[in-house]
Amino acid sequence: MPHPNDPKLRSFVDVDPASDFPIQNLPYGVFSTQAAPAPRVGVAIGDRVLDLAVLESEGLIDLAPAYDVFAQASLNAFMALGPRVWSKTRVRISELLRHDNPKLRDDKSVRTPALVPMADARLHLPFEVAGYTDFYSSKEHATNVGVMFRGKDNALQPNWLHMPIGYNGRASTVVVSGTRVRRPRGQLKPPATDAPSFGPCKRLDFELEMGVVVGQSSPIGEMLGETQAEEMIFGFVLLNDWSARDIQQWEYVPLGPFQAKAFATSISPWIVTREALEPFRVHGPAQDPVPLPYLRQAQPNNYDIELDVALRAAQMNQAAGICRTNFKYMYWSSVQQLVHHASSGCAMNVGDLLGSGTISGPEKHQRGSLLELSWNGTEPVELPGGVKRTFLEDGDSLMMRGWCQGNGYRVGFGEVEGTILPAS
Amino acid sequence: MPHPNDPKLRSFVDVDPASDFPIQNLPYGVFSTQAAPAPRVGVAIGDRVLDLAVLESEGLIDLAPAYDVFAQASLNAFMALGPRVWSKTRVRISELLRHDNPKLRDDKSVRTPALVPMADARLHLPFEVAGYTDFYSSKEHATNVGVMFRGKDNALQPNWLHMPIGYNGRASTVVVSGTRVRRPRGQLKPPATDAPSFGPCKRLDFELEMGVVVGQSSPIGEMLGETQAEEMIFGFVLLNDWSARDIQQWEYVPLGPFQAKAFATSISPWIVTREALEPFRVHGPAQDPVPLPYLRQAQPNNYDIELDVALRAAQMNQAAGICRTNFKYMYWSSVQQLVHHASSGCAMNVGDLLGSGTISGPEKHQRGSLLELSWNGTEPVELPGGVKRTFLEDGDSLMMRGWCQGNGYRVGFGEVEGTILPAS
Repeated sequence: MPHPNDPKLRSFVDVDPASDFPIQNLPYGVFSTQAAPAPRVGVAIGDRVLDLAVLESEGLIDLAPAYDVFAQASLNAFMALGPRVWSKTRVRISELLRHDNPKLRDDKSVRTPALVPMADARLHLPFEVAGYTDFYSSKEHATNVGVMFRGKDNALQPNWLHMPIGYNGRASTVVVSGTRVRRPRGQLKPPATDAPSFGPCKRLDFELEMGVVVGQSSPIGEMLGETQAEEMIFGFVLLNDWSARDIQQWEYVPLGPFQAKAFATSISPWIVTREALEPFRVHGPAQDPVPLPYLRQAQPNNYDIELDVALRAAQMNQAAGICRTNFKYMYWSSVQQLVHHASSGCAMNVGDLLGSGTISGPEKHQRGSLLELSWNGTEPVELPGGVKRTFLEDGDSLMMRGWCQGNGYRVGFGEVEGTILPAS
Repeated sequence: MPHPNDPKLRSFVDVDPASDFPIQNLPYGVFSTQAAPAPRVGVAIGDRVLDLAVLESEGLIDLAPAYDVFAQASLNAFMALGPRVWSKTRVRISELLRHDNPKLRDDKSVRTPALVPMADARLHLPFEVAGYTDFYSSKEHATNVGVMFRGKDNALQPNWLHMPIGYNGRASTVVVSGTRVRRPRGQLKPPATDAPSFGPCKRLDFELEMGVVVGQSSPIGEMLGETQAEEMIFGFVLLNDWSARDIQQWEYVPLGPFQAKAFATSISPWIVTREALEPFRVHGPAQDPVPLPYLRQAQPNNYDIELDVALRAAQMNQAAGICRTNFKYMYWSSVQQLVHHASSGCAMNVGDLLGSGTISGPEKHQRGSLLELSWNGTEPVELPGGVKRTFLEDGDSLMMRGWCQGNGYRVGFGEVEGTILPAS
């Protein structure tokens, strides 16, 4: 039987070559329809959603002794079953969708309810976020920010090259793509003023990130090895770590970002599995100094994922690209982040979400935030029709896309979109 | 009918005047017994646990339309019912326990299974921690730390007097009193070394805190007023925010504490309700400058809670007091912390836990951490028998107690205890 990643596989469901969701991808999400409003688990295939709750109830997928796993409104129960079940299930779904397998293809009574047009599906947050942690693992991003605020000579903090720096974020405000984002209010103290005032954020930004979805737990008091950490990773999403730069600037010393990052974090609705990304695994940048033994990697743990950010300013009809970069530039890998996260004995949970940190690249157009693109507001980003932006304005929409380019197909993440609402 | 806080109330259950749990308290917890190992909700009364699952199933407490609320292994379902139900239930429990009410007192068939000896009860984490946030709201603590690391002239950061500074902690490692705490490993870089190494923490500390248990949610994108925030507070626990000072020192710039605080946070098993603390409400210290309008308080929001920390070093048979302070010294109140937490539009959830920050007072013996008590390791704390401590050693046990002293009774929190295990 061919491997589910085999580029030659075809599905009986028509898939456009430009689609993010060929049979080689099979990302998981949670969806509902007007006709069946209970959220349940599905897999994207072309312009359809394959309803896994239907397949499970029809006995076409058997997760015994677990049952009704896909009838739930989150992927947590499925993730908790572990990497062997993830693999087996992906093989089974691939098999059922193949062009030469009549099982589902020719059984209209199951196929019709099981293959929902994507256009009819409402996509929900795909999992319950147990904890949200945000890292800071792009050397280019950390350097850009450092140069802006501390000058060239002290750009990177002394600890940065020794460990994946991260902080705990706020899980309660992780939202799915399409959720509108209310401009936060907060304490602002521009350098020229004597005292802070409270009001709407004036320097609202996005951060282009990938998110790791942790699908297994680890006990308190124990560390993780590289292989163990990798096997705990269920998949990846696109992530927009919305940031209020002015709130952050005033609040963050000495305990880090708090309200500046607490109002919203948007993720894409489809979780692309680690297995689907396997053909796109690449080495990350050389790490110098060599990391401490607990952070060393025996294998490449980065992925070649093209990333694209587009902005549709309130007065524009169409979005325009403002950043084009790649996940492969990240200095610290997701596996290193997870190993470090558990290194003190910190227990990890099913549903933990780890943001990679802003993904910037070596070139100017590869900068993953407006802070960097507009160089702290000093060089406005020029958009079509004479529109300029330093930071986000009310009504602006921000779109991120990501995909791995295979030979004749792409394994894509779809999109994460958010539109800014005025402060209340 | 007398109010449940009436000092004249007596229970038919014998309560020692020195007990933390008179009928005026009625704190909630989750317990199990060898005979009935399923964790369920109880209330402490003297040296007994009142099994609320028994009372609910016998129809003595009716939470309809909710049911089986107390048969659950956490208080989250009960908390979600809201402050009016909390009040009503407390009135009902108080009524059932009164010395002059024969209903439970004289019904042996219910009373016997419902009143479990505390000595037979195993106490569990009383709620599912949705999010854990830690503040830094004692001016004395922040000043002590500031003087140690930045000198007298820059002790308080410029933002400190303007808002309750806080950061997101790690919810997955909040544990109940009695859980042993594994000494964490992590990256250490003493100032004299060129590069970090990885190994067991050498500067392991406690932090004396109170924790607020949030019992109601608030929607994303909305702020809270003072009254609304207060009504969301279900109760308070004692909290030990274990801290690895050496890990923290190297990792915390610029994004705040991460692994240094991620390995364990201990809380007391009994949640003392906000209502039980009402008679002990006091004004906090004067706030100068006057806070911004969103943080102003129309009423006193501090509480007069005596706090006591004792250390039993590995070679000692008995614990010795090392700190005696009071919750009333906190500069920022729990209500101000919660209002600030939601000020960006951050959604709050049932089960959120807010640590107050280390509670120090103006006197030397009122310092709530070894960092302060030993002045960054330079002045060892002297214990009986010639034992000295700068930081915690393997086998050391740390106990915190807290109580409000009424006239002839005390509303107490019991204890939060933790013993240090060697690094693995």
